[in-house]
Amino acid sequence: MIIAMQQGASEEQIQHVIERLVNMGFEVHRSTGAVQTVLGAVGVRPDFDIREIEVLDGVKEAHRITSPYKLAGRSFRPDGTEIRFGNGVAIGGKQIIMMAGPCSVESRDQLFTVAERVAKAGAKALRGGAFKPRTSPYSFQGLGLEALKLLREAGDKFGLLVISEVMEISQIELMLPCVDIFQVGARNMQNYNLLRELGKVRKPVLLKRGIAATLEELLLSAEYIMAGGNYEVILCERGIRTFETYTRNTLDISAIPIIKKLSHLPMTADPSHGTGRRDKVAPMARAAVAAGCDALLIEVHHDPEKALSDGAQSLFPEQFEQLMGELRMIAPAVGRTI
Amino acid sequence: MIIAMQQGASEEQIQHVIERLVNMGFEVHRSTGAVQTVLGAVGVRPDFDIREIEVLDGVKEAHRITSPYKLAGRSFRPDGTEIRFGNGVAIGGKQIIMMAGPCSVESRDQLFTVAERVAKAGAKALRGGAFKPRTSPYSFQGLGLEALKLLREAGDKFGLLVISEVMEISQIELMLPCVDIFQVGARNMQNYNLLRELGKVRKPVLLKRGIAATLEELLLSAEYIMAGGNYEVILCERGIRTFETYTRNTLDISAIPIIKKLSHLPMTADPSHGTGRRDKVAPMARAAVAAGCDALLIEVHHDPEKALSDGAQSLFPEQFEQLMGELRMIAPAVGRTI
Amino acid sequence: MIIAMQQGASEEQIQHVIERLVNMGFEVHRSTGAVQTVLGAVGVRPDFDIREIEVLDGVKEAHRITSPYKLAGRSFRPDGTEIRFGNGVAIGGKQIIMMAGPCSVESRDQLFTVAERVAKAGAKALRGGAFKPRTSPYSFQGLGLEALKLLREAGDKFGLLVISEVMEISQIELMLPCVDIFQVGARNMQNYNLLRELGKVRKPVLLKRGIAATLEELLLSAEYIMAGGNYEVILCERGIRTFETYTRNTLDISAIPIIKKLSHLPMTADPSHGTGRRDKVAPMARAAVAAGCDALLIEVHHDPEKALSDGAQSLFPEQFEQLMGELRMIAPAVGRTI
Amino acid sequence: MIIAMQQGASEEQIQHVIERLVNMGFEVHRSTGAVQTVLGAVGVRPDFDIREIEVLDGVKEAHRITSPYKLAGRSFRPDGTEIRFGNGVAIGGKQIIMMAGPCSVESRDQLFTVAERVAKAGAKALRGGAFKPRTSPYSFQGLGLEALKLLREAGDKFGLLVISEVMEISQIELMLPCVDIFQVGARNMQNYNLLRELGKVRKPVLLKRGIAATLEELLLSAEYIMAGGNYEVILCERGIRTFETYTRNTLDISAIPIIKKLSHLPMTADPSHGTGRRDKVAPMARAAVAAGCDALLIEVHHDPEKALSDGAQSLFPEQFEQLMGELRMIAPAVGRTI
Repeated sequence: MIIAMQQGASEEQIQHVIERLVNMGFEVHRSTGAVQTVLGAVGVRPDFDIREIEVLDGVKEAHRITSPYKLAGRSFRPDGTEIRFGNGVAIGGKQIIMMAGPCSVESRDQLFTVAERVAKAGAKALRGGAFKPRTSPYSFQGLGLEALKLLREAGDKFGLLVISEVMEISQIELMLPCVDIFQVGARNMQNYNLLRELGKVRKPVLLKRGIAATLEELLLSAEYIMAGGNYEVILCERGIRTFETYTRNTLDISAIPIIKKLSHLPMTADPSHGTGRRDKVAPMARAAVAAGCDALLIEVHHDPEKALSDGAQSLFPEQFEQLMGELRMIAPAVGRTI
Repeated sequence: MIIAMQQGASEEQIQHVIERLVNMGFEVHRSTGAVQTVLGAVGVRPDFDIREIEVLDGVKEAHRITSPYKLAGRSFRPDGTEIRFGNGVAIGGKQIIMMAGPCSVESRDQLFTVAERVAKAGAKALRGGAFKPRTSPYSFQGLGLEALKLLREAGDKFGLLVISEVMEISQIELMLPCVDIFQVGARNMQNYNLLRELGKVRKPVLLKRGIAATLEELLLSAEYIMAGGNYEVILCERGIRTFETYTRNTLDISAIPIIKKLSHLPMTADPSHGTGRRDKVAPMARAAVAAGCDALLIEVHHDPEKALSDGAQSLFPEQFEQLMGELRMIAPAVGRTI
Repeated sequence: MIIAMQQGASEEQIQHVIERLVNMGFEVHRSTGAVQTVLGAVGVRPDFDIREIEVLDGVKEAHRITSPYKLAGRSFRPDGTEIRFGNGVAIGGKQIIMMAGPCSVESRDQLFTVAERVAKAGAKALRGGAFKPRTSPYSFQGLGLEALKLLREAGDKFGLLVISEVMEISQIELMLPCVDIFQVGARNMQNYNLLRELGKVRKPVLLKRGIAATLEELLLSAEYIMAGGNYEVILCERGIRTFETYTRNTLDISAIPIIKKLSHLPMTADPSHGTGRRDKVAPMARAAVAAGCDALLIEVHHDPEKALSDGAQSLFPEQFEQLMGELRMIAPAVGRTI
Repeated sequence: MIIAMQQGASEEQIQHVIERLVNMGFEVHRSTGAVQTVLGAVGVRPDFDIREIEVLDGVKEAHRITSPYKLAGRSFRPDGTEIRFGNGVAIGGKQIIMMAGPCSVESRDQLFTVAERVAKAGAKALRGGAFKPRTSPYSFQGLGLEALKLLREAGDKFGLLVISEVMEISQIELMLPCVDIFQVGARNMQNYNLLRELGKVRKPVLLKRGIAATLEELLLSAEYIMAGGNYEVILCERGIRTFETYTRNTLDISAIPIIKKLSHLPMTADPSHGTGRRDKVAPMARAAVAAGCDALLIEVHHDPEKALSDGAQSLFPEQFEQLMGELRMIAPAVGRTI
């Protein structure tokens, strides 16, 4: 950590800061300049709250030099992480993986119809919500355990991995036999108790960025899971909240190349939630692939107008098929297949 | 709901929209103008997802006319809600209520020292965290049940109400005998399962606005709790995320008069978390009172430099005493006491 | 405009609103429902400030139904606008146009070196700043008229169109003989006096989105230029300000498909200013093409480390050449050439 | 400037960074640690673009230690700046100055009616727009020179200072004899040519924060004016753009105590533009005073429903009088008079 003292900070103020740092276990180097004094503090703990120094009298600003995350950082695995599954599929490798399916599992018929279509079109994983927390207290809340079993069955039948969202610690046990990837939603990105439990699981976790989370905070949440021993974390951009109101959120495509540089973890995008509008899903899916993502999450429904949730952002199966064709043309431009 | 069709929308498109609306249970009124057709749809369900209409071909835009919340709206109780406690204290009445205490309960000694000081200075409630979810996986995580018991004991000794944060459904039972007010933190504002359970409790809930939540979303979360039968909800502004980085968050003071107009529920502010810096707490606390808040949450620590969490934003007891003096001068300007 | 009255609005309040609307020249339709009264007002002027109705007593909300822009809207030219130049190049047609060059024109040598490289690589237009307003009062401020002449000369020599930024009305006259496209920067997006003057010019204007401007505001600024008779407006996304600080701005790729739907005007992107970092330019350029942009603005410098401005975001010529190769692979996926 | 190299940065990369710094005129200190190398660079120019170092290979991050502004910083005048006017009024002293008047000067009758009312209520300055740039190309654009003369006449008659907005360099000469304070609007905060010219004027300038400007950027714009020799700069918060849509902008009250700490310049607020709604002006004006502002800009119109611009945010004269009474009660709490 580097601490820049204010111009004109008194010797007493400087000594108090040094004392505090030493008490906190830092080794301190002082450099007295013509204009101002700068202190270097070595040995910062990862959980150190830098504001504790910033509010001291005479301090102008303080900067952390080391990253607050270690395991999630690119230097931990410079060649990147490839997460391999039993069926030969890998996320983070040369192939871009399509994960598609309905927002919610509504019925056996609905799920199998959609699963068949997306599998034929080239998807490698089936997505589908079992537990649906909704903004309004009166909406469809998901089929729960029944949905999980249907997902597993459909996944096995059509050769698809299964990914579904976990919302509470108590659901982990329930989901373990049914899913291949646990999804953590944007609202739970900083639910640290849940992250800690997922750190003990031995299945990959797809972690979505919160709508107001910086990329550093996303990596710190990944660190939580990894600190527990589960290194198979997949990151996902799904839109941030900005002043623009035309779309529900603004899908931050630049997050893809940034995360690929800062971290070794696979990076994905969810253009369905990230735009909230069917007609924007395909352009943003193409953009995400062009920007270098490792996988995509796409909502597909065979009859979106009758979907029990998020129908407005679900593709028709034929739209998904067309999108797959477009993505296959783009992938080689970034040295990938699909 | 009002649906404006695009100029040049075909009759077929218009008929399809009408059909969809009728199938959804709406009664539809059509008004054909020189430039465009406008449809009025009566009977919208509170959980209706307006995007389902917006994405239909030929639709220009759709606007909900009725509020998505009912119980939380001002028209439900035009005179405002006053939440009364056993000891004669009321939130939402003429008196502005000060809730003060340490970020985390760290020890009996720490809590009682702080509680005595804030009680003497005029606080009516004691705040203190028992469970501390932290951004870093390595930090102090709170004393849990022991903290709750200490809070109750200190509250009783110094005549203070007790407020503490609930983070999971499993903690509700544990907290019930110890707290007078359940606090829901910003990260849990849309944890609907937790809100639903709190709707069954018969103790007031202080609900903090998420850092990326609109005021409408805050009211919809309050609706969740109220829909369960618990009408004693207190709302709290604690800072939103903006592009400005000098403070951790931007405390949105305008939320106070806006909520007071839209809702009958008491509205409060937390300038400690809302600014994250000790030297900004007093000015923002004064601003919140001047803008019409019903109560304030303030972090106070007898030795902030040694605090195990958020010391940088905790006031020294003497700063709190001075602030109380300033607030007593401001309160009459808004027709209140303190 | 649709005005929803509050539940319980008095007859007197409703009559006052109707009176105000009639005085403003509206024709008013009233619809009295079980729960609330809704008023329809026909004949709204494009400059009508909707807040004048929103603040009246008893009004719950008001919604504009017609767009505040006409000429810029898609319905004005459903097939889109193609802007054709003398040399056969067109923006808004099948070919995606690359506009490249240095941030600032620094010298004849610098400009001609870069121009030759980008022309060979396939660029169709040469960009370069002549007037450089800088955040700091002490920086290089551009070569002015000399730069304009050099741009024209280089453009003619290498068969490139010339685009340069106009910052003040007084510069228009000076620039007219030298540029093929006037660029309006993000900070001037709402400089209405400048826009009005550019409306009188008979050369295309590339209008950049302000960093805090909604897409509706961007279209309204285009309307300003078009209202003066200049219909050749090109829109450009160059990054918006969000809470994320890793990049200077967040390039909003979703603006591309949204504008293409709302407007008939060509839509472009500037990934150099939109990211501010060289290593993010290529991924975001690819994303913009994949999302459907009509042209790209890219900063290229033959020696970025010595550039007098924005060197950090300028590509090396060989990076630009590689990017061109990638974009040529992506273009067919969106039915375009490059 | 402090440059932290990446873990594992090669010696060659480190040497290249050092070389670049030396070429830029820095004196470089190297500190090689167990984990990473840190470079200190002394002698940074105020206009140095830190990204030029950040994009070099092997660099993890770079931090500016000295402020990019000097004259605007608090250390330049630790006791604060008080701007004194001929009539004994001072901004930045013990008295909080009220500046009130209509959004636009519409007629002699309108201006004099409003001026008399606000003067009697205790305002010390008269505000009024002469040139009105409007979002829509079709609106009332101001009375221009005639407005300026009326303002001067009204100011002299009722003993009020005159403040009006300057939008272009060409208007400065015109305005000089008529105004006591030049106002620079939010859209022109980074119009550097205009700022430079105002630096040569010997009258105070009130500089409004742009809706997407950080406080550091606001201070850097003040530096532009001061660098020209005009040290009489008054800063003004008038709302920033956030995701919340209930109000047009979010008035950032915390900007007041932050600027008072970072700078010696007087800090003011404009709750009329900052909220855009009449019913929110008074609460936010009270909050601004409670937070420590030196002056307020308030729009008042004797007949807001007929105002030619921004009537929705103008107070009725009786509302202004009531507000003055409230502010007089609050001022002593912050050691001020009004």
